[in-house]
Amino acid sequence: MTDRRPVAIVFDTFGTVVDWRSSLIADLTTFGRERGINADWTGLVDAWRAAYHPSMDRVRKGERPWATLDSLHRGSLDQLVAEFGIKGLSEADLRHINRGWHRLNPWPDSVPGLTRLKRAFIIGPLSNGNVALLTNMAKHAGLPWDTVFGSDLFRHFKPDPETYLGVAKLLDIEPGQVMMAAAHNNDLANARRQGLMTAFFPRPSEYGPHQKRDYAAEQDWDIVATDIEDMAIKLGC
Amino acid sequence: MTDRRPVAIVFDTFGTVVDWRSSLIADLTTFGRERGINADWTGLVDAWRAAYHPSMDRVRKGERPWATLDSLHRGSLDQLVAEFGIKGLSEADLRHINRGWHRLNPWPDSVPGLTRLKRAFIIGPLSNGNVALLTNMAKHAGLPWDTVFGSDLFRHFKPDPETYLGVAKLLDIEPGQVMMAAAHNNDLANARRQGLMTAFFPRPSEYGPHQKRDYAAEQDWDIVATDIEDMAIKLGC
Repeated sequence: MTDRRPVAIVFDTFGTVVDWRSSLIADLTTFGRERGINADWTGLVDAWRAAYHPSMDRVRKGERPWATLDSLHRGSLDQLVAEFGIKGLSEADLRHINRGWHRLNPWPDSVPGLTRLKRAFIIGPLSNGNVALLTNMAKHAGLPWDTVFGSDLFRHFKPDPETYLGVAKLLDIEPGQVMMAAAHNNDLANARRQGLMTAFFPRPSEYGPHQKRDYAAEQDWDIVATDIEDMAIKLGC
Repeated sequence: MTDRRPVAIVFDTFGTVVDWRSSLIADLTTFGRERGINADWTGLVDAWRAAYHPSMDRVRKGERPWATLDSLHRGSLDQLVAEFGIKGLSEADLRHINRGWHRLNPWPDSVPGLTRLKRAFIIGPLSNGNVALLTNMAKHAGLPWDTVFGSDLFRHFKPDPETYLGVAKLLDIEPGQVMMAAAHNNDLANARRQGLMTAFFPRPSEYGPHQKRDYAAEQDWDIVATDIEDMAIKLGC
């Protein structure tokens, strides 16, 4: 624990604030039933998420020009629909499925915890999602952000330093006045490398049966909590 | 009135949502009394605002590189402090005064009106202010924005098209799905030229005794209201 207080707290989003896996599986299962399309929707969701880092890494390494996460998600989806042999999807269906990332549900503690933290701090997502995705997600899930730090503001994905440092620059504060909150130790390690404060809480069911890491804090993060409500308590909110 | 509905409504801020003149005069008068510095604070505020458009126009015309509104405000303040013969201000004092633009108070209808509109629309400021200024102002004034469109996101000031069109791009919607709301007819004329919807309500005391225009709508804007609460009613919120 630290005595320093941040001015702003930014949150990783997928997995940290919203439960992408359960939300997407439910969303697609409902869609498939309504449209009479049978498929391994759970397998599709897991494969879709597995394509997440490789697709961003191509941008980060300069192998392809800047693209929003919405656009990367759509590229991966098109490939996976073919691989999974899913037939009968129209262009409107594919757009609807891709927008599933805008309709993710929060973990039970997310909205009450963020609401408490908002009283004392500037709060926002710092996510690889783009502003449209994150803003629509906040409307859907009731996330009370003060403002939204989408990767398209920086034209960089985490862990590029431009993202962590870009928040401090836009808020006209020092990197050490920004706290990164995440359920992923590597995100916090990268944020700390840029001088940000850090807060960890685990999301042990994020990947369902495929979870392999991030059950516990791996460094002495400034805050280690059980969830966002506990984090608010630890910060005196 | 129109039958079209926007997806997002963005608000001009200074004068439209917050009462910059009364707020700054009160802020500076209190500061002067506490610090024992006597000055024509009302005259300073009016002159400071008069420097607003000329300072941005130098950036817009390429006569100087990009600068945030905070930075332009500070440049104008330094000049005016000398012109008004105000003595005894430290660097910390000047920073405090310049941050007065982050501490502006809302018009009485702003928070209740925005709260109603937020239920049905994405709402945010589209202002020449920078993200830090607008975010701090929202915390101070209780403005319930979904996200903040500061001019530093676009590195352009209104009425450059990059600002109006930049909102649509970040939200991944068409310009015609964005409504610009302002108490200034010229802002709306520029927004309409880029394909945005428009909403007007007057703020007849914005400039105090120096008000010269914008007492009424000068075009058939999509919405013409008496204030933001009336705008919410007219949009069925």
